[in-house]
Amino acid sequence: MVLSRTHHISQQFDKELEEIRSKVLSMGGLVEELLSHVLDAMSKNDLELAEQIAASDYRVNDMEVDIDGECTAILLRRQPAAGDLRLVLAISKIIGDLERVGDEVKKVARIVSNFSNTGSQRSYYVGVLAMGYHVRRMLRAALDAFARMDSHAALEVAQEDLEVDKELEAVMRQLITYMMEDPRNIRGVLDAVLAARAFERIGDHADNICENAIFLVEGKDVRHVALEDVRQQLEQGRGT
Amino acid sequence: MVLSRTHHISQQFDKELEEIRSKVLSMGGLVEELLSHVLDAMSKNDLELAEQIAASDYRVNDMEVDIDGECTAILLRRQPAAGDLRLVLAISKIIGDLERVGDEVKKVARIVSNFSNTGSQRSYYVGVLAMGYHVRRMLRAALDAFARMDSHAALEVAQEDLEVDKELEAVMRQLITYMMEDPRNIRGVLDAVLAARAFERIGDHADNICENAIFLVEGKDVRHVALEDVRQQLEQGRGT
Repeated sequence: MVLSRTHHISQQFDKELEEIRSKVLSMGGLVEELLSHVLDAMSKNDLELAEQIAASDYRVNDMEVDIDGECTAILLRRQPAAGDLRLVLAISKIIGDLERVGDEVKKVARIVSNFSNTGSQRSYYVGVLAMGYHVRRMLRAALDAFARMDSHAALEVAQEDLEVDKELEAVMRQLITYMMEDPRNIRGVLDAVLAARAFERIGDHADNICENAIFLVEGKDVRHVALEDVRQQLEQGRGT
Repeated sequence: MVLSRTHHISQQFDKELEEIRSKVLSMGGLVEELLSHVLDAMSKNDLELAEQIAASDYRVNDMEVDIDGECTAILLRRQPAAGDLRLVLAISKIIGDLERVGDEVKKVARIVSNFSNTGSQRSYYVGVLAMGYHVRRMLRAALDAFARMDSHAALEVAQEDLEVDKELEAVMRQLITYMMEDPRNIRGVLDAVLAARAFERIGDHADNICENAIFLVEGKDVRHVALEDVRQQLEQGRGT
């Protein structure tokens, strides 16, 4: 296996790369935190917390702009070779996905902040919440795989995305029955549908983060490649 | 002002950049075409066309992987200076947005391919179709602004995104009434809701493409900046 992390002429450059990686992990930590809070707000009917989350989105955006600017500066100043270039490019994509997760969290926060205080909607959100907890675990595992440069772990997480899609289908089916039961439920249940869709997207972004972690470690673009094929490629890579 | 497009030592490099730009425009053309076709399929209840479109998504994905690989190769081989680097980075983001537009088109195509042959759903789709035509115009205008490196045109398009959001709100309100009228409509109307959401996303991606065109021309990251502020910055830029 090629050692991608050769010694840099400048220790300063190593430090810069390390800083930018740790900023990505901070950004990831913030997004995870907001996602956890929105799940709390949803489960506890906490409208105030939801409003706070919806208003915190700018922090994620600021971090994206900051990190992206540093990526550009590094490319200009350092003209990195293959391994480091991959790191910078992977980071540039990962922060795009994190920013979009932030957008989805904000959408869910807005939905929750419009909950009425009656709590009548609780039953609609049982399956939706389960999806939310699932994609939160996926997001954390995706960021861990990136932090540890572990392409096999990344592949495991990517495979879970298919389960999230199945969960969404089941949730949708259930929500439709609530709508049919009583047309007065329709507006409320439609919000639950949109929240479920937002969680599904977060799963997609976790999946993208994993693909970028694999690209970073293996130097292979595995987007749009069947997961079974990726697994075989990784196994072969181990064998050689 | 620094002239960002200095003569390259190598004419070959100019040619490479030109080629990659034209590939992006081809990819954009393909995505526009698929979007037009899905609108046709939706308006004419053409299930077969919809299925063909859903199966064409891989062409967009292949183009993304191809162009992205070339961007990486250029960064490695050419270590471009500021202006060219911005072009490569803008392209790398624009193709990500185009690929996501392709995903949304595929989702809509799947919805249309599940239309029953009765045509009963036509009325639900009047507003949804109007949204689709609107975002198609936006996407074309965004790609034109990129092709012509016209940041003012890009800003115009970006501003339309707010109109699309308003259209979505009106469409959603109308669709809810259809659901309430008769619970047997719910499943069908829910598909129309999801198609409308997909078109809204396409509008968002057109907006992102515009932001990248502005970044390319002006060297400013205008994501998450209020449009009025961007306009003022561009006006000031003209004045100096």
